[in-house]
Amino acid sequence: MQKDPYSLPPEEFYEHGDSYFLPHISIDCVIFGFHDNQLKVLLLEWKDSLRWSLPGGFILKDEDIDQAATTILLKRTGLEKIHLHQFHTFGDPNRDRKKHGINPPKGSNSKSWIMNRFITIGYWALVEHSKVTPTPDAFSRSCSWCEISEVPELILDHNLIIDTALESLRLQLNEYPVGFNLLPSKFTMPELQSLYETILGDKLDRRNFQKKILSLDILTRLNERKQGGAHKAPYLYRFDKKKYQKALKQGLSFGI
Amino acid sequence: MQKDPYSLPPEEFYEHGDSYFLPHISIDCVIFGFHDNQLKVLLLEWKDSLRWSLPGGFILKDEDIDQAATTILLKRTGLEKIHLHQFHTFGDPNRDRKKHGINPPKGSNSKSWIMNRFITIGYWALVEHSKVTPTPDAFSRSCSWCEISEVPELILDHNLIIDTALESLRLQLNEYPVGFNLLPSKFTMPELQSLYETILGDKLDRRNFQKKILSLDILTRLNERKQGGAHKAPYLYRFDKKKYQKALKQGLSFGI
Repeated sequence: MQKDPYSLPPEEFYEHGDSYFLPHISIDCVIFGFHDNQLKVLLLEWKDSLRWSLPGGFILKDEDIDQAATTILLKRTGLEKIHLHQFHTFGDPNRDRKKHGINPPKGSNSKSWIMNRFITIGYWALVEHSKVTPTPDAFSRSCSWCEISEVPELILDHNLIIDTALESLRLQLNEYPVGFNLLPSKFTMPELQSLYETILGDKLDRRNFQKKILSLDILTRLNERKQGGAHKAPYLYRFDKKKYQKALKQGLSFGI
Repeated sequence: MQKDPYSLPPEEFYEHGDSYFLPHISIDCVIFGFHDNQLKVLLLEWKDSLRWSLPGGFILKDEDIDQAATTILLKRTGLEKIHLHQFHTFGDPNRDRKKHGINPPKGSNSKSWIMNRFITIGYWALVEHSKVTPTPDAFSRSCSWCEISEVPELILDHNLIIDTALESLRLQLNEYPVGFNLLPSKFTMPELQSLYETILGDKLDRRNFQKKILSLDILTRLNERKQGGAHKAPYLYRFDKKKYQKALKQGLSFGI
């Protein structure tokens, strides 16, 4: 058996992919990119049409689903060791390319396994935009970042998948110190607040934010101020690694 | 085609179930029952062995996955219109009855579709224990409530599924007014605190709890006190329906 069925020529992938992969089940990845206080999402532009989709793939017959998602992330971004969060499984019976007028590429089997109904497992990742080399798959002409507010109409329910991923990311931000790995090792309170505001898509009250964040007891204020600002330079902070790891595991207990 | 493949005789279900259901994908339901400040979970005891499992089932070829979960809940509990929360999909490649020494019933096809690897979609529900009539399925001798702390060893990864469901329920309790439907329409602060403590499995500080719950602005204090207590009778509260519905939709914003 071939080691990497993703490297099969498209016609063969359509014809024989089901000898490698589980039928009816796919994975879609919402890869959020954060950079300069902008939140973007990685999209594929298809070769044969004007269609756009999320990066996705399938599950080998003896493969763990988390591993399958990790492989998709690696292939599209070059990134390893990134936390992927499984957030929801989408199982509308209309998740079926035939029902959406999506045909296989010319010359491929129109009764391909890919033309069946698929249930898809959604994962999101949050990565530093500038560290990524977006790489199209065999069916796409491009792989590129798109501003969250400018996502075009995507195939099937992929717009819903992005909306649901964003809700999940925002919920996680309240419960876990998600995305703090996107900051430099020393950062200011305004930088941290910007990260939150960008992900939440909303402005936050400065004093309230500082009070709540400090109450989490995961930051250490350094005896250093940020250089170069015109106004009074803000203090630098860093994470207390032990407390940060504990919070990652147990949650921030913002709640009751 | 038969309308309800679950009513097929077990041998036929093993032999021909895959003409009704998607292969390789199942649903497992963690049905939590709350009653008298106890949290229980609904388990099935299998007919042919000493095995225990969660109530579960499969997805008809043209059925929505949420609908499939709703059907399972209805069949095991008699309850309709209960909120089912999809919390996680489990996809370890060892989720395979053969690998766990679980054989089909005597006389059934040992190469049955059921003996393949299954990815399972987990849902939980939180119901009022006393309203349920636990009903075994065709493969079980009993269906009954089990104290969370006394769950026996279950098949496959079903113990992990319960643990993960409980984590998800506790997380949701911080973000949404989950389970408030388990209280009578008028209730006291100690009753609400007991509900939280039972689900969280932990004692909470009385004053802190009251302060945080009131700050959510979803309760109305009535000009009435609970009758019959020996000590000073506590005030009764009820939910402000509009604010409660809004909180159910938007979350409680406990966080930042």
